[in-house]
Amino acid sequence: MENGNGKLATPAAWNFTPNDTLLGLSALSVRGVLCRVKAGMVEDGVRPVVPMGNGDSSGFPCFRTPPEAEDAVADALRSGQYNSYAACVGVEPARRSIAKHLSRDLPYELSTDDVYLTNGCAQAIEIVCSVLARPGANILLPRPGYLFYEARAVFNGMEARYFDLLPENGWEVDIDGVQALADKNTIAMVIVNPGNPCGNVYTYEHLAKVAETARKLGIFVIADEVYAHLTFGEKKFVPMGVFGAVAPVLTLGSISKRWVVPGWRLGWIVTNDLNGVFQKTKVHPCSYIDVNNFISSSGVFRSGLGHGVQVVDSIKNYLEISTDPPTFVQGAIPQLLENTKQEFFHKTVNILRETADICCQKLKDISCITCPSKPEGSMFVMVKLDLSCLQDIKDDMDFCFRLAKEELVVVLPGCAVGYKNWLRITFAIEPSSLEDGLDRLKTFCLRYNKPKK
Amino acid sequence: MENGNGKLATPAAWNFTPNDTLLGLSALSVRGVLCRVKAGMVEDGVRPVVPMGNGDSSGFPCFRTPPEAEDAVADALRSGQYNSYAACVGVEPARRSIAKHLSRDLPYELSTDDVYLTNGCAQAIEIVCSVLARPGANILLPRPGYLFYEARAVFNGMEARYFDLLPENGWEVDIDGVQALADKNTIAMVIVNPGNPCGNVYTYEHLAKVAETARKLGIFVIADEVYAHLTFGEKKFVPMGVFGAVAPVLTLGSISKRWVVPGWRLGWIVTNDLNGVFQKTKVHPCSYIDVNNFISSSGVFRSGLGHGVQVVDSIKNYLEISTDPPTFVQGAIPQLLENTKQEFFHKTVNILRETADICCQKLKDISCITCPSKPEGSMFVMVKLDLSCLQDIKDDMDFCFRLAKEELVVVLPGCAVGYKNWLRITFAIEPSSLEDGLDRLKTFCLRYNKPKK
Ligand SMILES: Cc1ncc(COP(=O)(O)O)c(C=O)c1O
Ligand SMILES: Cc1ncc(COP(=O)(O)O)c(C=O)c1O
Repeated sequence: MENGNGKLATPAAWNFTPNDTLLGLSALSVRGVLCRVKAGMVEDGVRPVVPMGNGDSSGFPCFRTPPEAEDAVADALRSGQYNSYAACVGVEPARRSIAKHLSRDLPYELSTDDVYLTNGCAQAIEIVCSVLARPGANILLPRPGYLFYEARAVFNGMEARYFDLLPENGWEVDIDGVQALADKNTIAMVIVNPGNPCGNVYTYEHLAKVAETARKLGIFVIADEVYAHLTFGEKKFVPMGVFGAVAPVLTLGSISKRWVVPGWRLGWIVTNDLNGVFQKTKVHPCSYIDVNNFISSSGVFRSGLGHGVQVVDSIKNYLEISTDPPTFVQGAIPQLLENTKQEFFHKTVNILRETADICCQKLKDISCITCPSKPEGSMFVMVKLDLSCLQDIKDDMDFCFRLAKEELVVVLPGCAVGYKNWLRITFAIEPSSLEDGLDRLKTFCLRYNKPKK
Repeated sequence: MENGNGKLATPAAWNFTPNDTLLGLSALSVRGVLCRVKAGMVEDGVRPVVPMGNGDSSGFPCFRTPPEAEDAVADALRSGQYNSYAACVGVEPARRSIAKHLSRDLPYELSTDDVYLTNGCAQAIEIVCSVLARPGANILLPRPGYLFYEARAVFNGMEARYFDLLPENGWEVDIDGVQALADKNTIAMVIVNPGNPCGNVYTYEHLAKVAETARKLGIFVIADEVYAHLTFGEKKFVPMGVFGAVAPVLTLGSISKRWVVPGWRLGWIVTNDLNGVFQKTKVHPCSYIDVNNFISSSGVFRSGLGHGVQVVDSIKNYLEISTDPPTFVQGAIPQLLENTKQEFFHKTVNILRETADICCQKLKDISCITCPSKPEGSMFVMVKLDLSCLQDIKDDMDFCFRLAKEELVVVLPGCAVGYKNWLRITFAIEPSSLEDGLDRLKTFCLRYNKPKK
């Protein structure tokens, strides 16, 4: 193959050029897709826009973060003690208080050294993908899922493989699917609990199965718990770290969702790893990690062969060449965790319960949309679009584009979460606005209703 | 070659594994090196530690950021308007006010769209390296220099090539060296002005030469101006963007240094590009950029061949899969830029002038250290260590390690800026502390003085 310039084509090893791939990767971002959805939308000055597209409820008065959280950050800022660069792992008091905070839900105590501060959970994902990636390696991701993982994994040259979440089983992980997918080049599997986009909350038993599977396969678990404690159904939130003795878990989280401050940019990576696998496992140099090397057949993790870099050191090394979360937000963390009143969390969860109910109720009246599983956590519900009931609508993207244009209602097309012809609806908005939006959604669907033959 | 496991060695194409490289890359970080320097230091409770190692003066009362800067951030925080995720390019008012702010020093007006907000200048570097990198490409970096560029370039698979800065010419760029180094795979050259680690400030004429050289070679200029306006000698700061009609310039900056708030994490990438090269240049897909394609021999930039991703789009795409600077700091920018009083800047520059003078005066009395070029900007001076005058000292690292251990004085070994057996001394500290530190440095050098034969 020649290029237009008459030069020889590039060698195969150069086929991956990050640059060239960026266009495709950004198409995997929720922001990127929402931008396209909203492209045709013109505000009419009469009806307000109803934003049920992204996972950010911070703009709605009923979700406003409590004054004590603001105070914590303002106090840290005003102290003048946190204008400096921080240690790349994060400031010690913040790490310590996060360790303590997360340990409340665990059968053991995390130490300060288990916690690395990041610029939101997004940077935690970036770091984990950068550290674990090497050519030939693959990572197992849930479908539907949060495609940022794929973007970061692929940018770093890893292969993303998808296992299914099962709608009829409350979006549980298809464990058999995971086993079929994994091979010796598999590094880790990701679970998002409570789930984006599915609103799933996993039971202790299901998480135990996930951990056992990871142990058997000899892979790490990356547990994205950015929606931790945002649960409003029967099931309580169980952190994956509970199984840190079964399989090594990297827990990712942030204050973005529970404190409703995604703009503050403070997250973490936590090692939940009672057997010290991350310390012992040496990432094999100049080769993909042979994960089977660090788990013996008896299920005891053992250290990798040869010299190389430990996972934990590798995280620290990457942090040294990364940008940090704002120091004064780090400095605010102990006060923020200590002072935030339970009432605030209760209030948030109560509104989420109410809005999830409104959403499911109203959706029942829309015939071309079905909801296979009622959400019990996070801020989203995944619903199926029956295109056969709609005329002139090509697909989920087309549906969302027209809905935004005609009704000023923004909803995320399933393609943005790897699930074509479904929709992800965010119900974490002001209840009155939600009702309005769902009514307009219904009007829209009726307008496009295909007469039964 | 076989590995310990009896498997075939990996193909050559896999020799670059980011993971494996992280260890080496983090050794390139100032933080990483300083950590090693301080490893043997035990505080004695008598003498205070004198930190002349890093580029962060925010901990010293005389450099404290002014109340109006704190107010701007506190007001944005308290408004509750900036708790949300921001647009990935940054919030509009902040971009607009940075465009206006930087335009004051330019012969033309920047537009809002020329400005992309980043998590400090560090993330600006990360983004630029990620966007421009592709296998086979190389980037030209100054030596001595800020090795974070090499770390991020190499992490993304680019080759780093070094041109010299000339100590005897005020650390000007060795233009002939740049020309000898560049080839058709060269993407860009980096200049840091005012300079880290050299304290250089370049004249209009020298920058014009740099721009002409870039134009001739058909490469981009990455102008790191994180120390913009921190100049205290004869020469005024001239932004590289002044030459945006000669060559396409990516200007990187932040509020970290001038406002003395590196912990606030707000920086930018600005396109200074009067010919629209970044818009027109299509990064050639599946191949390194053939930079000669976008400059005709007459010096007129023309668009690259084939389809592909434009540089500007590529930056936007990468921003979509990156973490953002804190939204409320973005929100504070217009007020911060508008309200910061000139007196604060004057005061800072006056202290820098004073401390630079103290530093150069005191160093004159230390025979094993020579300063080839008096600093005129930033917060650093590069000085040469004459090891032949010192007994039992192996190299710059050894010197700094012992100095920290024995005198509690921290100085950066030249190896951390790519200049073995030199030292980078930060003078941007409290003047009394600086005098104390330099006195101890003198004591230390006298103690290790090698008797003349
Ligand atoms: C599953 C998941 N992980 C991570 C993130 C990023 O969160 P943060 O705001 O902490 O970067 C999000 C944001 O929506 C998310 O849904
Ligand atoms: C030359 C240079 N560029 C960039 C940076 C990073 O600055 P920021 O704090 O804005 O990330 C530094 C920090 O010391 C620097 O010296």
